[in-house]
Amino acid sequence: MRFIHTADWHLGRLFFGRHLTDDQAHVLDELVRLAKDACAEAVVIAGDIYDRAVPPVEAVELFDDTLSRLLLEEKLKVIYIAGNHDSAARLGFGSRLLAGGGVFVAGQLQADAPPIILDDAHGKVAFSLLPYMEPATVRFAYGEAAQELMGFDEATSFTVARAAALVPERCRSVAVAHAFIAGGASSDSERPLSVGGSDSVSPACFAPFSYTALGHLHAPQRAGAENIRYSGSLMKYSFSEAGQRKGVTIVDLAADGTVSVEEVPLAAPHDLAVVRGTLEEILGDRERFPKSEDYIAVELMDEGPVLDANGKLRAVYPNLLQVTRPGLMEQAGILREQGREKLGRPDDVLFSEFFADMTGKKLDEAQEKALHEALAELLREEREAKI
Amino acid sequence: MRFIHTADWHLGRLFFGRHLTDDQAHVLDELVRLAKDACAEAVVIAGDIYDRAVPPVEAVELFDDTLSRLLLEEKLKVIYIAGNHDSAARLGFGSRLLAGGGVFVAGQLQADAPPIILDDAHGKVAFSLLPYMEPATVRFAYGEAAQELMGFDEATSFTVARAAALVPERCRSVAVAHAFIAGGASSDSERPLSVGGSDSVSPACFAPFSYTALGHLHAPQRAGAENIRYSGSLMKYSFSEAGQRKGVTIVDLAADGTVSVEEVPLAAPHDLAVVRGTLEEILGDRERFPKSEDYIAVELMDEGPVLDANGKLRAVYPNLLQVTRPGLMEQAGILREQGREKLGRPDDVLFSEFFADMTGKKLDEAQEKALHEALAELLREEREAKI
Repeated sequence: MRFIHTADWHLGRLFFGRHLTDDQAHVLDELVRLAKDACAEAVVIAGDIYDRAVPPVEAVELFDDTLSRLLLEEKLKVIYIAGNHDSAARLGFGSRLLAGGGVFVAGQLQADAPPIILDDAHGKVAFSLLPYMEPATVRFAYGEAAQELMGFDEATSFTVARAAALVPERCRSVAVAHAFIAGGASSDSERPLSVGGSDSVSPACFAPFSYTALGHLHAPQRAGAENIRYSGSLMKYSFSEAGQRKGVTIVDLAADGTVSVEEVPLAAPHDLAVVRGTLEEILGDRERFPKSEDYIAVELMDEGPVLDANGKLRAVYPNLLQVTRPGLMEQAGILREQGREKLGRPDDVLFSEFFADMTGKKLDEAQEKALHEALAELLREEREAKI
Repeated sequence: MRFIHTADWHLGRLFFGRHLTDDQAHVLDELVRLAKDACAEAVVIAGDIYDRAVPPVEAVELFDDTLSRLLLEEKLKVIYIAGNHDSAARLGFGSRLLAGGGVFVAGQLQADAPPIILDDAHGKVAFSLLPYMEPATVRFAYGEAAQELMGFDEATSFTVARAAALVPERCRSVAVAHAFIAGGASSDSERPLSVGGSDSVSPACFAPFSYTALGHLHAPQRAGAENIRYSGSLMKYSFSEAGQRKGVTIVDLAADGTVSVEEVPLAAPHDLAVVRGTLEEILGDRERFPKSEDYIAVELMDEGPVLDANGKLRAVYPNLLQVTRPGLMEQAGILREQGREKLGRPDDVLFSEFFADMTGKKLDEAQEKALHEALAELLREEREAKI
């Protein structure tokens, strides 16, 4: 059996105030074509379909459209589970009704839900659906048997073991889960599962399965074993992911249960890139800094003040999203010292320096005269106000 | 063909701060059993499934559960459309996928969507689904052909005519619509479709259909013809509906397209009632005012002040939701007059009267002394503050 493993679509995500729906629609269109061209039998989405519990209408429509195309046009099965960003109950709407049509959804965690059984030429494959397993959710779902479970590792290991026990004997099996496997490489866009505590779980519990399709971490990676993997997110959702490949994992499950995987890239209409240089370098050097429609974060290395950096940079990067000033940060220590010293200097000297910083020019004679008159006026008003 | 016509479920509704989900679950359970016992072939829900665009999770779960029971356990078809309370796009999620399983949903209005065709022993029946037809929505859906349409009557008549034209010749037909038919009797719990303008439409446009299943008005009623009907809402959603019957309409569609209807009541676990009397009468007269677990609005006829009416009334009506004071209102004119006169009287007289009103007793000697001391103190402070 060949299936597509994908995860972390985060439909409805706002990225620096921008809706990414059009970009996501483009990548999902690629995904549908890839699934068709690869002759996959199913698409498995390992959680975080949506970016939030109540996604915007456009995200709901995009998911509906993608599902409908995969099922009705490409005649694929689709399996999806809730991640920590999804509302489990909302995502699970219609799950019993949709199952008849080949859509298998696990929204809220159900104790001992039987695996989904799909067939291929070599027999049955059991898919165990393990939506986001927060310890409290596991305790609620399993009742007394789970009351002693503390922390993500215990809760997940318990739930996965119960699911594994329900896989028919000698049946090939796939676990679909949304979890943070210990040792995984994270990015800036995954919402931590636990604040202060440890949210990571050992991959050992997934050993009984032929393959484990994971969601949560946004970089594609193995998680403790070759057959326990993150597909990574659909797109780059933070600048910390600028260097990551994004795409899906095509999984081939052989008759004997061995798997082979291929990571296939999906290109977004706008890539994400971090650009580093001084304003002068970036504006002047088209060879080192070619124009780009990508989503850009600029690390401006200038040490002094710069005027309207964003406006100027947009000429090169129309989709500029962020400008940071590491150059200024490096100078922060020095500036702090200078600041203390400066406070003791007269107003006209301070203003002259500011003017030179901002314009690159010295005050001319007329300007200097105007400055002194203005200062004299201000001082007189101040004196009068005190009386 | 026999089907159940129902509408205006308003799942997720808050009623005086109370979630009605448990009550609604109870009534929907009755509805499922009724559909089964009546050997209906389909359930038609004419809009306002939810009370708001983003319903609470419990409402989503209840709707999912009810749908799943009707489809999977009772093997019925279900047809539903968006009303003015629903989010058309959210309600429409999965519509293409669900159709294969016998659930037919119209969320957003689609131009010239073909009718749903169901079969019975006598041939085909076409169901034209007409979700809430706001004029702007009609203009958007139908483009150029609809640009001149103004107001609900024009927009609805246009859309219904287009839908009627798509019904195959000599095919029996049912229109399912959410609209305000001119002359209908409204209640306090329907959200007006139009503010300031006219939101009512003539029933004439529905004449081509064998039957029209309407939603929006909460009282069951015919709308211009015997075969154009409101089923009314699932439950009483305002005290203005206290006297209305609530239930569903069972529709029998004969081979020749004639219809016969039966309105069947559904009982909610708590009825709604308005109780009118003085506090003394209500608290003292168990024969006229028997104890009740219903949701109660009391119209308190006392003309003077009463102490802790809500607390006292809860002993008789644990689900007391509202206390109004028409007795006080009737006295308002007199009180206003008295108020003007009272303002001229000395503070100690005013306080003595207030004390008597609140406690039913006169000030005793010690209390009178304390009052005068307090007043003298206050007056002295006031004088000193002015200096």
